[in-house]
Amino acid sequence: MTVSLEDVQRAAERIAGRVRRTPVIEVAPGLTFKLELLQHTGSFKPRGAFNRLLTAKETGELTGQGIVAASGGNHGLAAAYAARELGVPARIFVPETTPAAKLGTLRTLDADIVQVGSEYAEAYQAALRVQEETGALLVHAYDQPEVVAGQGTVGLELLEQVDGFDTVLVAVGGGGLIAGIATAIADHAQVIGVEPALAPTMHRALADGAPTDGTVGGVAADSLGARRLGDHAFAAVQAHHVRSVLVEDDAIVAARKQLWRDHHLATEHGGATAYAALTSGAYEPTAGERVVVVVCGANTDPGTLI
Amino acid sequence: MTVSLEDVQRAAERIAGRVRRTPVIEVAPGLTFKLELLQHTGSFKPRGAFNRLLTAKETGELTGQGIVAASGGNHGLAAAYAARELGVPARIFVPETTPAAKLGTLRTLDADIVQVGSEYAEAYQAALRVQEETGALLVHAYDQPEVVAGQGTVGLELLEQVDGFDTVLVAVGGGGLIAGIATAIADHAQVIGVEPALAPTMHRALADGAPTDGTVGGVAADSLGARRLGDHAFAAVQAHHVRSVLVEDDAIVAARKQLWRDHHLATEHGGATAYAALTSGAYEPTAGERVVVVVCGANTDPGTLI
Repeated sequence: MTVSLEDVQRAAERIAGRVRRTPVIEVAPGLTFKLELLQHTGSFKPRGAFNRLLTAKETGELTGQGIVAASGGNHGLAAAYAARELGVPARIFVPETTPAAKLGTLRTLDADIVQVGSEYAEAYQAALRVQEETGALLVHAYDQPEVVAGQGTVGLELLEQVDGFDTVLVAVGGGGLIAGIATAIADHAQVIGVEPALAPTMHRALADGAPTDGTVGGVAADSLGARRLGDHAFAAVQAHHVRSVLVEDDAIVAARKQLWRDHHLATEHGGATAYAALTSGAYEPTAGERVVVVVCGANTDPGTLI
Repeated sequence: MTVSLEDVQRAAERIAGRVRRTPVIEVAPGLTFKLELLQHTGSFKPRGAFNRLLTAKETGELTGQGIVAASGGNHGLAAAYAARELGVPARIFVPETTPAAKLGTLRTLDADIVQVGSEYAEAYQAALRVQEETGALLVHAYDQPEVVAGQGTVGLELLEQVDGFDTVLVAVGGGGLIAGIATAIADHAQVIGVEPALAPTMHRALADGAPTDGTVGGVAADSLGARRLGDHAFAAVQAHHVRSVLVEDDAIVAARKQLWRDHHLATEHGGATAYAALTSGAYEPTAGERVVVVVCGANTDPGTLI
């Protein structure tokens, strides 16, 4: 079932006060950045996580067993943060390859970290097993309706914060963010997905007529490296006729450096991917077109910005 | 003559559209950051520079000779940026010790860079001589009424953006920013200066009854390392009964790292100094006190943030 505008609106009410209404900044005439990298934990992910947890609290699905999630990255941080704020335990399953720095940040959020397997898929299967055994709530990184609806609150804020815009550029991994935003602003503006050429989940889903697994690589794989587009995301991008453009890794690297040099924004590669569509020319706005770029993540080693 | 609220209000009208209305973000209940590090060129300095240049344009003092300024740091960047935007040439005098990276950024702003002497004072004297010889407009880093009035527009924005606040914490070097903000919000809230213990220009001026020269050092000296408080700043802080607190270098270093770790803001040491008053306890708000911290500069090597 496709997530609806009403779902996003209810999510906004539900998570109000839990997430930041992140600022926008007009960086040039007709070009606005949505600074979602200033969200709690440094990415947009807490929006979906809070909506998932708070919905489950309403229905009684969130118990003293707390939550499980699989991710050594932004999703894990967001799920752990939301659980801590709501006073329930979080078990975060991460591959054994997860860098120590990321584990350290997860620990500051009081998460119980379980290292398992050599890649994400194994961590995810382990999380599923524990969910089944314990009744803990599984918080998916992108493919749950509550998660999509939560991420869509970025779009509702844009409608309030930006005085008229034609296009929103959004990076695509599993597709939760773009699906939510497209649902929120479908009647007002077009949404363009921006995908790393080395991890084009949405291109492949549109070409194949359904989400299919693919190989994952490239500089942005730590945040946009889903194997396939989510089913809920696919339904939304089909319903709202969202299209996407591809950007090469060198364009992402250059856009990230430009965001630091010109705008003093420290982003991860995935957080710079939407902007790369503009700087590389992969997306060329028409004269007078008013564009919003969602700058969606800051969890990076700042030493690599210059 | 003390800069007046009306001067700041006229500055705001004059520079509107030239500078960014930088966002605010509530990071905790009653604690708001003013993200002035997202201003053009990465610091608040363009506000004063534009007001100085545009005022001089009205009076005819800004000619084809353009401007001169002395600074290898934020002020030089801001003066060069304002001059380029207004289509006049800029000669920026910098010490021969200025790092190549800063010179490179200045060059991207089309400035004519003159390297002279081993310290700021020599560069400043050279700028003064050229000003006298050519009639170019001198843009001071802090001690001109137009500059103080321009920086004060930060305060006017706070009155519009923040729904009630009691205290604003502002870093102090030459004092242009704190003088302007104190002038703008004197009727609404108190302003507290925060000074590096190794460069306490305002403490010394208040103790001596007038600005006096002192030694300058510490981690924030690249942006807060004025030898003395400006005369216009002194008049303003006296008129508005502004006081200041001191913070040690290790507190500034810790606050800067915390701004990155907890809030994904990449700041220079001077840009983290106001926040250091809170994190170190040098300033302790009372229960319920609503505090704004001006995060005022981002020109830093991001590799040193963690």
